[in-house]
Amino acid sequence: MSNYIFKPSAQTASFGPTVWVEFSPLAAKYKAINLGQGFPDFEPPSFVSEASIKTTESGGFNQYARSAGHLRLVNAISTVYSPLFGRTLDPMTEIMVSVGASEGLFVAIQTIVNKGDEVILIEPFFDIYTGAVTMAGGQAKCISLREYKEDRKPGEQRSSRHWKLDWSELESAITDKTRLIILNNPHNPTGKVWSREELLKFSEIVQKHPHLTVISDEVYEWMTYDDAVHTRIATLPGMYERTITIGSSGKTFSITGWKVGWIIGPRAIVSAISMSHQYVPFSVSTPHQEAVAIALEQVEQRNYFHELRTMYQAKRDKLVGGLRAAGLDPVVPEGTYFVMGDTSNIKLSGDQGQNTSLTGMGLNLRDWNVCRWLTTDIGVASIPPSAFYSEEHAKEGFNYARFCFCKKDEVLDRANQSLLKLKDHNNNNQK
Amino acid sequence: MSNYIFKPSAQTASFGPTVWVEFSPLAAKYKAINLGQGFPDFEPPSFVSEASIKTTESGGFNQYARSAGHLRLVNAISTVYSPLFGRTLDPMTEIMVSVGASEGLFVAIQTIVNKGDEVILIEPFFDIYTGAVTMAGGQAKCISLREYKEDRKPGEQRSSRHWKLDWSELESAITDKTRLIILNNPHNPTGKVWSREELLKFSEIVQKHPHLTVISDEVYEWMTYDDAVHTRIATLPGMYERTITIGSSGKTFSITGWKVGWIIGPRAIVSAISMSHQYVPFSVSTPHQEAVAIALEQVEQRNYFHELRTMYQAKRDKLVGGLRAAGLDPVVPEGTYFVMGDTSNIKLSGDQGQNTSLTGMGLNLRDWNVCRWLTTDIGVASIPPSAFYSEEHAKEGFNYARFCFCKKDEVLDRANQSLLKLKDHNNNNQK
Ligand SMILES: Cc1ncc(COP(=O)(O)O)c(C=O)c1O
Ligand SMILES: Cc1ncc(COP(=O)(O)O)c(C=O)c1O
Repeated sequence: MSNYIFKPSAQTASFGPTVWVEFSPLAAKYKAINLGQGFPDFEPPSFVSEASIKTTESGGFNQYARSAGHLRLVNAISTVYSPLFGRTLDPMTEIMVSVGASEGLFVAIQTIVNKGDEVILIEPFFDIYTGAVTMAGGQAKCISLREYKEDRKPGEQRSSRHWKLDWSELESAITDKTRLIILNNPHNPTGKVWSREELLKFSEIVQKHPHLTVISDEVYEWMTYDDAVHTRIATLPGMYERTITIGSSGKTFSITGWKVGWIIGPRAIVSAISMSHQYVPFSVSTPHQEAVAIALEQVEQRNYFHELRTMYQAKRDKLVGGLRAAGLDPVVPEGTYFVMGDTSNIKLSGDQGQNTSLTGMGLNLRDWNVCRWLTTDIGVASIPPSAFYSEEHAKEGFNYARFCFCKKDEVLDRANQSLLKLKDHNNNNQK
Repeated sequence: MSNYIFKPSAQTASFGPTVWVEFSPLAAKYKAINLGQGFPDFEPPSFVSEASIKTTESGGFNQYARSAGHLRLVNAISTVYSPLFGRTLDPMTEIMVSVGASEGLFVAIQTIVNKGDEVILIEPFFDIYTGAVTMAGGQAKCISLREYKEDRKPGEQRSSRHWKLDWSELESAITDKTRLIILNNPHNPTGKVWSREELLKFSEIVQKHPHLTVISDEVYEWMTYDDAVHTRIATLPGMYERTITIGSSGKTFSITGWKVGWIIGPRAIVSAISMSHQYVPFSVSTPHQEAVAIALEQVEQRNYFHELRTMYQAKRDKLVGGLRAAGLDPVVPEGTYFVMGDTSNIKLSGDQGQNTSLTGMGLNLRDWNVCRWLTTDIGVASIPPSAFYSEEHAKEGFNYARFCFCKKDEVLDRANQSLLKLKDHNNNNQK
């Protein structure tokens, strides 16, 4: 009887459920150990929880914060980051607090990208980037990092450092319509920490183009291992004025659920982004901002970032060891809390990995089937990396699975134990 | 030397600082009593703060929530609202949690409005609507509520109920390109509570148009006074399937700083909006959602909404009394925590109200100057309603000032005291 017809807007009509909608329920259904979604399964450090309790108990932090960020927090961010950026960051004009890195990315992209503009994304990429580009009416142009195994020196272990960008591909991807390029450093999912030399080359190419802005998503900035050094592209010559750096308290303090992130950059761009932010969430949680500020004020004295790195390096080594033992020849990550396992040796037969799908997503994609099978038959959930590629390049992810090690040691131990079942499977296949 | 040029995107380039940027600092500078921005200056009820402390102390709520909303919260929302909507609301498909009402409005608008679509806004309107419409590339078409003083019966007090929409204006504003109409009920800033008869008429007009969706912003739903009854337009015949209802914990529990809101509506629209929401904040604070859920679970047993209404009705009466005594003939609001004072009797001379501007905004707008002068010379800050009109209709707000009464009784008493200074001013002017 009704004549009503709802049609989602053109800029959102293509959106569907994401990879998490398949794998989190699948892991739950099969009681698999979930190394899929990237959030810690442990509590934040006690000084962070205590800051939160104190803020709630004291009262006075329950009403709207300043739209661009609570004063105590923007001041704390300025204090921590000014030395790292090698300049005094004005807390009122060069810093904005966002609802996690996610909303920071979203409003930055909205403020930079016009309908029809091109945006360069580097595959594999965090899947939220494409959604935000699409809503702005932008065209994503994807170029991919590739693993150059032949670059390994004799005796050198497989490492995220062998994932590289082809500079000529980058150069030819940039056109007159390219307005934005999104860099992620350290890089999810490969764990790559971009070297200073790479970033200099990158900057040189970018600086040939007057209208090209860079977003550098650095949410894993404190998770670098061995002798990897995290270089902030905004600190390279000529780059500050055209770079928006994205950070998040979620990864750093193991509070992904609080959704407090920030952007840092030149006044002109940050103030334009702050104007857009007024119309999206208007402001970010006041009590969480106060608590994150209190936490940031203590990081130096507590040597917290060093402690975090030490904790994660041990977890990385544990999981890397387990993947190796299971024959999943891991790409050892120099950063982030993810590791790519190599699944080429896994042979599925019949409809293995397809018949268990809960949503029917990715039935013809090898890595989706392998990841499903690992979840249901081996008991460890991971994420198929092709979800982080454009359709065109999806196959570049087919022989990998992304595991995360931001989990309790005993959980990683159990995962490693379960993964050993793979040896039987592979032996059986070789018979 | 640098060749870099930053230009904000077309959909955000028009954004500038909002009215708050002028009045909050002005109030602070002149130590005026701030009845401008609409947030409570008192703490939330203790059962709400206790829920928050408990959530933090117990742990387990620090990581990402489900994107469309934490289970306990969507369940609590379904329990509270299902009886009010007269139907069982499915917590998983008909409810989505947002970063305050603001982000709910933003993603709903993004998901409904295409570039070039027309959106009908009813003036005066909450200023965030236009920003979100502009970012979606929509065209705002504004029609205004007008105060029909002549409709007052003999002896009847001036009331928000005399603010009405001209139905023929509404009918002729709708074209083939109109995709969305935003209703705000109870209405900020007039305090109008739309009557059932009005909403039936409104619905009848809307239902002639198959592509027309309604957003009903009901964040002040629990603040209705005297015998005003809040009717949810989604409960009228034929309206549920085309209406998105917006709510917020911020106003209801005096926690505007937590930024937890929600949308309720038919599965088709809510699921499309949830897809967009994945790419904006991805999720909403887990600990805040848990605490709001605990609070909502207690409202019935505590008779909380009744208590809230009683508290605010007394505050309304107090401020209305003060405005009346000061000669600011108030439009008595039947809902919200705002009241419009009538400033026609205030005569400014020379550059009064202009010379104190901190930003240079609104120098030629009467209500801006009156509100500035009230802040600096009378010591009470309010908000000029022309900020809630399109430029074309700005003058309809010139003889009003919006005051809010979500303030401690002693603050309202002091404001009333200060406002009495107006009598001298007016007497002097009449000499
Ligand atoms: C590369 C990258 N950027 C941004 C985010 C989102 O950060 P937040 O939780 O602060 O929104 C993530 C989360 O997984 C990420 O991996
Ligand atoms: C009419 C109206 N809608 C929405 C909002 C924003 O609500 P929230 O703080 O939950 O984002 C406000 C806040 O003033 C408002 O007045």
